[in-house]
Amino acid sequence: MAKRQARFTPQEMAADPRLHDHSPELWSADLAEVPRGLLTSAVRCFAANGFHATTTRDIAESVGLSPAALYVHFPSKELVLFEIIRVGHERVLEYVRHPSVLDEPDAAARLRALVSRYTAWHARHHVTARVCQMELAGLTPEHYDQILELRHQTNDLFRETVDRGVADKTFAQSDVRRVARAMLSLCIDLVRWYRLDGPDTPEQLGDFYANLALKMVTNPD
Amino acid sequence: MAKRQARFTPQEMAADPRLHDHSPELWSADLAEVPRGLLTSAVRCFAANGFHATTTRDIAESVGLSPAALYVHFPSKELVLFEIIRVGHERVLEYVRHPSVLDEPDAAARLRALVSRYTAWHARHHVTARVCQMELAGLTPEHYDQILELRHQTNDLFRETVDRGVADKTFAQSDVRRVARAMLSLCIDLVRWYRLDGPDTPEQLGDFYANLALKMVTNPD
Repeated sequence: MAKRQARFTPQEMAADPRLHDHSPELWSADLAEVPRGLLTSAVRCFAANGFHATTTRDIAESVGLSPAALYVHFPSKELVLFEIIRVGHERVLEYVRHPSVLDEPDAAARLRALVSRYTAWHARHHVTARVCQMELAGLTPEHYDQILELRHQTNDLFRETVDRGVADKTFAQSDVRRVARAMLSLCIDLVRWYRLDGPDTPEQLGDFYANLALKMVTNPD
Repeated sequence: MAKRQARFTPQEMAADPRLHDHSPELWSADLAEVPRGLLTSAVRCFAANGFHATTTRDIAESVGLSPAALYVHFPSKELVLFEIIRVGHERVLEYVRHPSVLDEPDAAARLRALVSRYTAWHARHHVTARVCQMELAGLTPEHYDQILELRHQTNDLFRETVDRGVADKTFAQSDVRRVARAMLSLCIDLVRWYRLDGPDTPEQLGDFYANLALKMVTNPD
């Protein structure tokens, strides 16, 4: 049996609404059109078939290039993955470091803004976010450590936000580390099933999850 | 660049605590030792490297067999995946269809038992569960439809349990479909990060999540 037998073809990937998101908006405007197109193609290939089953040929051919042309921009497949995962993690961190989160004095309003923005970002960019969450094992140890540092910063923001509300008694006493981890889990899991053509817009889902997150901390045991 | 360059080797997989769970307990006692060993090996390979990047040779060699010996038991790699995903979905459904869930008249106690058992099963079998949740796209359309039917039964049990508490006013009015989906998300996401050698036992995590699920539905908006 050919091991590539059942992989998604470029035609299937292009037609599958589960592989459509706003990823093309994520790449730096400083990059030329070709590397931006390669990153967008790679997001779809990695999300559909996994990092290890994707070849540089798959990534390049979707944008009409040869694998050699890909190497001009990215010297290895792992560097394509690292660029996607790095940009994804930096962008979501920027998105939650918003005045409505950082400058909000009220703990409940701050948590609402944080969960709402974190959820909406993952929904809007759910295909890139899927790669960011599910393909970390494809990174080199050095690159993995760099990403871990970004993840710690996001996780710390969740913990600090819950902690602040517990400290000023806006929230009930709770196991801050585990509650923050549960909130992150709730928001991240949507990358497994969210579709932009489904019933919830990213903002609607964000509002709904912000409300659930508040209930997790405002109701005493 | 060799596309298998960065895949986990059998030695790395055997040494990685993130790939250790209680999967060997899942397979039918009617199966001989060889096919049971092949399923356990395949769970680890699929979880570590993804379905498409795993070869039948990878699965067979981990248990000291040739790919030809695998075909005696499983005529294709997809049939190995289907067996794992089918058994995983059937077992978790059996596990939540427990008297503490089905025969419990109190809506809150019923939800607590359901979320607690669903979480604990996913934690205890987190490697198989990861394959069940992340590799569905490797199934043939016919097999996928069979699994979808099992998933609908589990999802329906969550919805009915929330619905019952809303109907008898144990729970606040809520969007039953979306709340049930959020509870499933919370429980399933742990397969991405849970480790049996971590700080929470499956039952401790189950109790913690059952408590969060109750808070989601008992606090009015």
